Amino acid sequence: MADRHEKPEAGAEPLAIPSLRWEELPEGPAVVLLDQTRLPAEEVELVCADVPALVRAIQTLAVRGAPLLGIAGAYGVALAAVRGADVEEAAEALAHARPTAVNLGYGVRRTAAAYRRSAAGGATPQDAAGAALAEARAVHAEDAAASTRMAEHGLALLGELLPGGGHRILTHCNTGALVSGGEGTALAVALAAHRAGELRRLWVDETRPLLQGARLTAYEAARAGIAYTVLADGAAGSLFAAGEVDAVLIGADRIAADGAVANKVGSYPLAVLARHHGVPFVVVAPTSTVDLETKEGAAIEVEQRAGREVTEFSLPYLRGTGAEAGGGIPVAPRGAPAYNPAFDVTPAELVTAIVTEAGVVSPVTRERLADVCSASRWRESRSGNGMMAE
Amino acid sequence: MADRHEKPEAGAEPLAIPSLRWEELPEGPAVVLLDQTRLPAEEVELVCADVPALVRAIQTLAVRGAPLLGIAGAYGVALAAVRGADVEEAAEALAHARPTAVNLGYGVRRTAAAYRRSAAGGATPQDAAGAALAEARAVHAEDAAASTRMAEHGLALLGELLPGGGHRILTHCNTGALVSGGEGTALAVALAAHRAGELRRLWVDETRPLLQGARLTAYEAARAGIAYTVLADGAAGSLFAAGEVDAVLIGADRIAADGAVANKVGSYPLAVLARHHGVPFVVVAPTSTVDLETKEGAAIEVEQRAGREVTEFSLPYLRGTGAEAGGGIPVAPRGAPAYNPAFDVTPAELVTAIVTEAGVVSPVTRERLADVCSASRWRESRSGNGMMAE
Repeated sequence: MADRHEKPEAGAEPLAIPSLRWEELPEGPAVVLLDQTRLPAEEVELVCADVPALVRAIQTLAVRGAPLLGIAGAYGVALAAVRGADVEEAAEALAHARPTAVNLGYGVRRTAAAYRRSAAGGATPQDAAGAALAEARAVHAEDAAASTRMAEHGLALLGELLPGGGHRILTHCNTGALVSGGEGTALAVALAAHRAGELRRLWVDETRPLLQGARLTAYEAARAGIAYTVLADGAAGSLFAAGEVDAVLIGADRIAADGAVANKVGSYPLAVLARHHGVPFVVVAPTSTVDLETKEGAAIEVEQRAGREVTEFSLPYLRGTGAEAGGGIPVAPRGAPAYNPAFDVTPAELVTAIVTEAGVVSPVTRERLADVCSASRWRESRSGNGMMAE
Repeated sequence: MADRHEKPEAGAEPLAIPSLRWEELPEGPAVVLLDQTRLPAEEVELVCADVPALVRAIQTLAVRGAPLLGIAGAYGVALAAVRGADVEEAAEALAHARPTAVNLGYGVRRTAAAYRRSAAGGATPQDAAGAALAEARAVHAEDAAASTRMAEHGLALLGELLPGGGHRILTHCNTGALVSGGEGTALAVALAAHRAGELRRLWVDETRPLLQGARLTAYEAARAGIAYTVLADGAAGSLFAAGEVDAVLIGADRIAADGAVANKVGSYPLAVLARHHGVPFVVVAPTSTVDLETKEGAAIEVEQRAGREVTEFSLPYLRGTGAEAGGGIPVAPRGAPAYNPAFDVTPAELVTAIVTEAGVVSPVTRERLADVCSASRWRESRSGNGMMAE
């Protein structure tokens, strides 16, 4: 059962948007989500008081973004345990809510394992549930901490690359608090620069076809009080030509062992423009994004998505306008074929630096990338609970 | 008075879409337009039986595109003359329907001058009206002929640049029959390649923010039976990286004396990608597009358009859905600032060739460009009626 309620003070929030939180309501505990499908038109929270409601929220993309899905899955298992539901069944349902979301399964497995360890050790169901919730909170906290470290490393890097401040930063897609337990990846660095008084302008690519830049990054930037400007993706070239971009900051969905970066489609053209204009192109991502099993960029499989994301205009908050019936508003002839890769791949030689929670990789080489990952994984295996160790 | 009627055989048209024609209807002569604001959702013709109706069609963008506006203005003056209306008043109203449309004033002035010459020579009003109509038909025919010559020159150039055929061509914005009395500029070349059996694929950038690629170029390609695929502008980089683009063909809104090309925003990033991948970048435009008074690209003033074209989704055929009231559907936070240049400028060094009706300029240098223009203008001044001599 999910209930929607308006946030009382929309627009007055300071910096961290509570994209997801555990809440002890009078009627019992719940996972409370900011419904991302309604942004930026409405700020509505979705109260998930049981696992089926949370699974639906994941499937409808009310909650999205790899790190955040891991946290949602973790809390979901805890929710089942605290509510006295079948934990194994809940874990199964959550882990398969979006089969390709790696982090989702990670958060679920880790919290379920904590529950089982506790139960196997003779704890009461209540204590085992407490152990699951503690583990979910740890998953959440670790992701937030990784954001903080990436922001610190990224800010220091900007200071080195662009001495004097006054940065004008171009970003693509959404990489902020909405996809993270903390303040995100690339957007966390921009936010740190803003707080340090060093951000002059954040240029926000609208990011077609799903407009995560215009809808979500602009929403986060506005709430943070950042001086930002939205643009059509094709207008970025004009900004470079006019000397209006000092650095590009983007996130990553997957980084191959050779340093090639898969990220939202439209990232690679920015890398080529940045190189043409001598502008640094910086990727911000936790080491968990590095997939050492994928030896090189060419081996990264790029998801091809439905053409109607391009040929029809549709947003979830169009529901009720009639525009969504059987799809969206056509913007191309009926039956027009479309090429719609979700991601593109930028080779390492176009990437100035990769900023991780464990340090900055620059220049981006196979060896340096492996070094940062192994340092990170060694620390986590010692602490025994590394989010990044998956 | 304008009347709308459904085209009887939508989709069955062969190649040339009658974007505008003079028609002798039972109730009198009229300028009949394909209403471009309704494409691709509906193919509706707009019958303009008097000048006020035509002026409204121009102002509402039912008819658009520089060369086509020249033709519309020319027929508008003829319509006033044939209908016995005040020709000078009609010319004034038409010429100012869109003040920045250079070709519109040209078509109006040329046809009005033909009317006055005839009347001053003692012709009856009916004969003078006939002279005006003949001049409008000449304006129309010359534009069509320029399209044909550009297509021939462009096809020959493709054969030289890409021996063996099987071209995969990427284009941006709309440059076909919808903006021309003939088959257009860049799209006319693609069409010629298609007819010659040498076009394997036309990649159609959707062309944000106004989606002229998805809406209009895809519509024209579909009707012509071209194998085409629409893509988000940011996905072009993936096509280049995959080796799926053999050449870029675009039009131009203005070409400076140094060969710098102003065209729809998003063209310059394609030029940079094309250079990075060693792919020819070809501009197709009549010599009337060359502005020798503008010495260099940096001097081209780029129109900045309303930010809401980016931050709101709106199409004319949304009328009646409620989506257009007070603007469009918001895709960014309320009040989000947007950077929305209509055009960008590609320097000559990134342009492989400029294809004009008078020949191909390649490499693109100030001297070669001036040579082609002066050859063209000399011929036209001899013939005394050059569309290109304006």
